[in-house]
Amino acid sequence: MENVKASVENIKAWLEGINQFNATPEFGTTRVLFTEPEVQARNYIKAEMGKLGMKVHEDAIGNVFGVFAGTDTSLPPVWTGSHIDTVLNAGMFDGMSGVIAGMEAVRIIKQANTSILRSIVVVVYTSEEPTRFKLGCLGSRAMAGKLDSKAAAELVDKDGQSLLEVLSSLGFPVEDFAKVPVKKGDVYGAVELHIDQTGVLEKAQKSIGIVKTICAPSVFDVEITGIQSHAGGTTMEERRDAFMASSEIALALEKLGRESKSEYTTATIGKVEVIPNAVNVIPGKVKFSIDIRDCDFDCKNAMVGKLKKEIEKIAQNRKVTVQITEYNNDYPMKCDKKIIELLKKSCKKNRVPYEMTISGAFHDSMLVGEFAPVAMIFVPSRDGISHSPKEWTDFADIAIGTDILADTLAAMANE
Amino acid sequence: MENVKASVENIKAWLEGINQFNATPEFGTTRVLFTEPEVQARNYIKAEMGKLGMKVHEDAIGNVFGVFAGTDTSLPPVWTGSHIDTVLNAGMFDGMSGVIAGMEAVRIIKQANTSILRSIVVVVYTSEEPTRFKLGCLGSRAMAGKLDSKAAAELVDKDGQSLLEVLSSLGFPVEDFAKVPVKKGDVYGAVELHIDQTGVLEKAQKSIGIVKTICAPSVFDVEITGIQSHAGGTTMEERRDAFMASSEIALALEKLGRESKSEYTTATIGKVEVIPNAVNVIPGKVKFSIDIRDCDFDCKNAMVGKLKKEIEKIAQNRKVTVQITEYNNDYPMKCDKKIIELLKKSCKKNRVPYEMTISGAFHDSMLVGEFAPVAMIFVPSRDGISHSPKEWTDFADIAIGTDILADTLAAMANE
Repeated sequence: MENVKASVENIKAWLEGINQFNATPEFGTTRVLFTEPEVQARNYIKAEMGKLGMKVHEDAIGNVFGVFAGTDTSLPPVWTGSHIDTVLNAGMFDGMSGVIAGMEAVRIIKQANTSILRSIVVVVYTSEEPTRFKLGCLGSRAMAGKLDSKAAAELVDKDGQSLLEVLSSLGFPVEDFAKVPVKKGDVYGAVELHIDQTGVLEKAQKSIGIVKTICAPSVFDVEITGIQSHAGGTTMEERRDAFMASSEIALALEKLGRESKSEYTTATIGKVEVIPNAVNVIPGKVKFSIDIRDCDFDCKNAMVGKLKKEIEKIAQNRKVTVQITEYNNDYPMKCDKKIIELLKKSCKKNRVPYEMTISGAFHDSMLVGEFAPVAMIFVPSRDGISHSPKEWTDFADIAIGTDILADTLAAMANE
Repeated sequence: MENVKASVENIKAWLEGINQFNATPEFGTTRVLFTEPEVQARNYIKAEMGKLGMKVHEDAIGNVFGVFAGTDTSLPPVWTGSHIDTVLNAGMFDGMSGVIAGMEAVRIIKQANTSILRSIVVVVYTSEEPTRFKLGCLGSRAMAGKLDSKAAAELVDKDGQSLLEVLSSLGFPVEDFAKVPVKKGDVYGAVELHIDQTGVLEKAQKSIGIVKTICAPSVFDVEITGIQSHAGGTTMEERRDAFMASSEIALALEKLGRESKSEYTTATIGKVEVIPNAVNVIPGKVKFSIDIRDCDFDCKNAMVGKLKKEIEKIAQNRKVTVQITEYNNDYPMKCDKKIIELLKKSCKKNRVPYEMTISGAFHDSMLVGEFAPVAMIFVPSRDGISHSPKEWTDFADIAIGTDILADTLAAMANE
């Protein structure tokens, strides 16, 4: 916008406003899908959108839409937004920054009296994080037609409650689940602002990252069954130790990740459960997650294939049994060239140095990209740390990103 | 005993009687120190001892003593007994068999009208398993003078409650803690019956194992601190993954255990906690237990030294930090030759084939041996499995062991 810039104070106030709703204020931010703090944060955002003069509605899976109407509401709108749920003990920026930036962009477009043809919609996508249901991007996945009500009834949390049950108990119109998917052409384009999660911007000393490709994950659960027995009474030869087998698989996974031809491959075991988990008992069972990501779909698939062979070999050698459950095998998403050009143009106009980059983390844009052209703006994050209480982005950096976002949304809205 | 034999029915009824008190009846037996089922099992045993005409008393740490008085109560008594607490999801035999066998031995000595000079005391030792306080043999350790009230105040469970607080809340006279230690000479000798935990008797097709040496554990807690970060946003090179470091340590431990010169070395990681434990977060912290056992103290110490060097090397390479907490480094215990001769003699008299063996698992006898001559009788356990719902010993096998125990206790009581 000419003469009107994003307000650092607004951004700080909104981020701190959302961060009141937090299950672990002593240790970072924890706001898991449809827990009390998450529902309170939704209500807070909806109220703040209302104050900006936006019309708010929700769909059956709880995606929130704040609509700032353009002069021709018959045209496909422009979208922006991100998520407000977090992993356990995370920070106050990942996701939230994108929602707040969208709201602040709308505010300054209004303040600058910029006329817009297409409506601008700020979207809060339901559960980008896989914290509760092990699967991420639930809202955008459903919009992309990849999560129907049957799948929502089969997704269960650790207490055995299904996503559909939770939605229903909170009063969402689950009977309208079939209306969630968005048709190609219904959205003109979508731009998501997000914090950088690699430290690349900090290292390059750039204020803005323009994303070329969003890497996509493959997520598995692995269950190793050995023989539970006494730590002192069972010789090393006799053991069928499920934890030692898991450790060997972990190192095999790490090796494959390190040796991958694609420089963007990551391989993580983040969640581990040892059974019975007692000092003097050889673990009879270990359950763990495997998260593999890549910007190159074929490279990711090849690695998954190699890993499965390694797991089989290890299980055979150690005489343990393995069960693998696949959750998702998502496609990396290429960002839209036309929107990327608008982002570059705005950076140049605002004299903001930018870096062309990729996103190692997945985002809702990965699935929105299935039905609309997408692009992403990254803003620097200290040491590239996210999903941690140490996560930090300067509010002023979000403001710089918001200026670029507002320019680009306004330009798209008038195309 | 001549003409009087242990009753299989009694043994079965008592073991099933104790097993009523179980926190996980659907998945093996769980009876953790001073939880409700454990307190109920104590009361049950005390009542059953009373029915046998034994006088029952307890000390400040909750060791239970059922006294069957000899004709000269001024003489040091003979002890037998074991424990009634279990690990999580264990079986109904480990520990309990030794308590029941002691009671049945007393019953048949009485039934046979065998006169005894020394009293025979059936002891239920407090918390042989380290389930609640991470340290095993709490009762016998205190009797051996290796756990005073200060240490009991410092031992805390996962909820932060100290052993001393728990004892006090249950009405144990913690002011008498200094009276718990037993002086050398105060006990004439002690024999413990226990299930075999290696499968050696089953393989050798012997009914009785006579233990030569009890292996002893060294128990540590290891805490690895890396950097918690986003699974997709952090390249393989940048990671400081606490779980991958733990996996490498696990395999190094296993290798050292396998390569040990002593054939009785075991090495186990039984308890693992991953923080924050989320699918898409690189673990920033992992806490795990290490349990190393050996019948050879020097061999065990040498291995611990090597392991610490390995851990240091791994931590340095991976740029993570390590904190090691040592819980105990116990001495293996050689069983008393004189009692072993009595056990052999009874086996021969009863025409029961026996096997000279070692105990890979530790037992209260390891610490009782610090103040009295000790010996142990093993009875077969199916597939050598213990600390598991699959743990099984035939009641008839416990009866055979009880006959040998009764003979030996009576002989010792008349020495």
